[in-house]
Amino acid sequence: MGKSVRETFRVPGELDLAAIDPRGRPVGPQDKAAAAGEMAELGSRLDGLQEALYAEATGGSPRAVLLVLQGMDTSGKGGVIRHVGGLVSPQGLQIATFKKPTDEELAHDFLWRVRRQVPIPGRIGIFDRSHYEDVLIARVDELVPEDVWRRRYTEIVQFEAELDAQGIAIVKCMLHISAKEQAERLIARLDDPGKRWKYNPGDLDARAKWPAYQEAYTEALRRTDTDAAPWYVIPSDRKWYRNWAIAALLAETLADIDPKFPKPDFDVDAERARLAASGVS
Amino acid sequence: MGKSVRETFRVPGELDLAAIDPRGRPVGPQDKAAAAGEMAELGSRLDGLQEALYAEATGGSPRAVLLVLQGMDTSGKGGVIRHVGGLVSPQGLQIATFKKPTDEELAHDFLWRVRRQVPIPGRIGIFDRSHYEDVLIARVDELVPEDVWRRRYTEIVQFEAELDAQGIAIVKCMLHISAKEQAERLIARLDDPGKRWKYNPGDLDARAKWPAYQEAYTEALRRTDTDAAPWYVIPSDRKWYRNWAIAALLAETLADIDPKFPKPDFDVDAERARLAASGVS
Repeated sequence: MGKSVRETFRVPGELDLAAIDPRGRPVGPQDKAAAAGEMAELGSRLDGLQEALYAEATGGSPRAVLLVLQGMDTSGKGGVIRHVGGLVSPQGLQIATFKKPTDEELAHDFLWRVRRQVPIPGRIGIFDRSHYEDVLIARVDELVPEDVWRRRYTEIVQFEAELDAQGIAIVKCMLHISAKEQAERLIARLDDPGKRWKYNPGDLDARAKWPAYQEAYTEALRRTDTDAAPWYVIPSDRKWYRNWAIAALLAETLADIDPKFPKPDFDVDAERARLAASGVS
Repeated sequence: MGKSVRETFRVPGELDLAAIDPRGRPVGPQDKAAAAGEMAELGSRLDGLQEALYAEATGGSPRAVLLVLQGMDTSGKGGVIRHVGGLVSPQGLQIATFKKPTDEELAHDFLWRVRRQVPIPGRIGIFDRSHYEDVLIARVDELVPEDVWRRRYTEIVQFEAELDAQGIAIVKCMLHISAKEQAERLIARLDDPGKRWKYNPGDLDARAKWPAYQEAYTEALRRTDTDAAPWYVIPSDRKWYRNWAIAALLAETLADIDPKFPKPDFDVDAERARLAASGVS
């Protein structure tokens, strides 16, 4: 065994996104068939761990997991929810999608809407976009002054430290795709009537600012990567590799949490006797 | 083709639960292997329909589906969420679990907490228990006076008619198990340390009132079965049959809704040209 999956994808000290190959496969399966086999095994492991986490919460444990997904349009946030989230029972998931803030949301601090979506005990929360938009699009499109978005790095680190202290294991993934791959996926969305609804002309506006976004991501990842809430850069030009990598990260994180089935707060033998006496005909 | 799945399971005019065999298989697969094959096919159909429903909502359609699950303890509500809900992307689901009402919930009308969980457009909402508890346990345990729970039948019918008018297709399933099967499942929960957390001594109190519950279910189903919000009685002693039946009901309901991918609100060719010009290197 070499480095763990978490060590492999963890954002390096001096992050340079251009130096990370979006088609890289630094660990794990090297082709789609191998990935399918590993996903089946990971799926049953994740499912068992998630069930134990859920069970543990019924006994009063506060622990939960929060998977944050960030990436350029078409990088595969929805695909991860479907193919990785789909590995566990939907009852164990709490999915939150963060779109353009509403007027009500804008009237509050930027973390207000995020706090409301923090996963409850026993759940794997998945954020489809997140509070990171407030240092990404907010910066690139100058939605707020620089001193405001700069201050947010610290606010985010504090917020995530709070969640960690509450018992929430945070896994932040940047889905790293190439501009070329994005172009191909956008063309596919335009060409396929079954995918066209996913296309948004605004995606091209963001695409036109690709270098500014890469810069904003780089600084955000550098400033908010902590041991309590680590960032992982996931090579995402290959969908099967992206899904495998995130499933493997989650499985490692959950194995580390090591959730335990709660001890019964009743007398098992006494209940067996009551049940035997409850002969409903 | 004989009767549709919906016609087969629809609560009959003069419902007599004792006359419906919890091990019955009146339509569809007759064994587990056949059910597995059909589930795979149903899964891909449901997934496609759910994606179209989701897509349609992005174009402004209000349509959604609400699956209401009711049944005695161990009847399989969680299993349906896992095995039927698990057939579509978790992003397309909105799951609500109704437990014993909190003080805040009790301070409001019984439908208050239910209205807050009505699925948003494009989603399949799943209610794990529901407002029907307010005419089931509320009646059996005399939590409210008879005139209050009696009035609720009408209130529920009106509420569900409202949802229907809003574009929400309602599918209400009573998971029908035998007292004998429940005993076996409760014993399994007591015996298996991995299942023990699902056991609640209160389950035996409800079990002791089995006939009163059957009576309460019978009247609830009779009084609230409408074409806008039909009730189905699902033979549930066999888990694989229960899952197949509910997946088939959902697939029929969604096929009937016939969700359509929205028409693009942009000029596809113009976007192709913009994309071609967006050569980000």
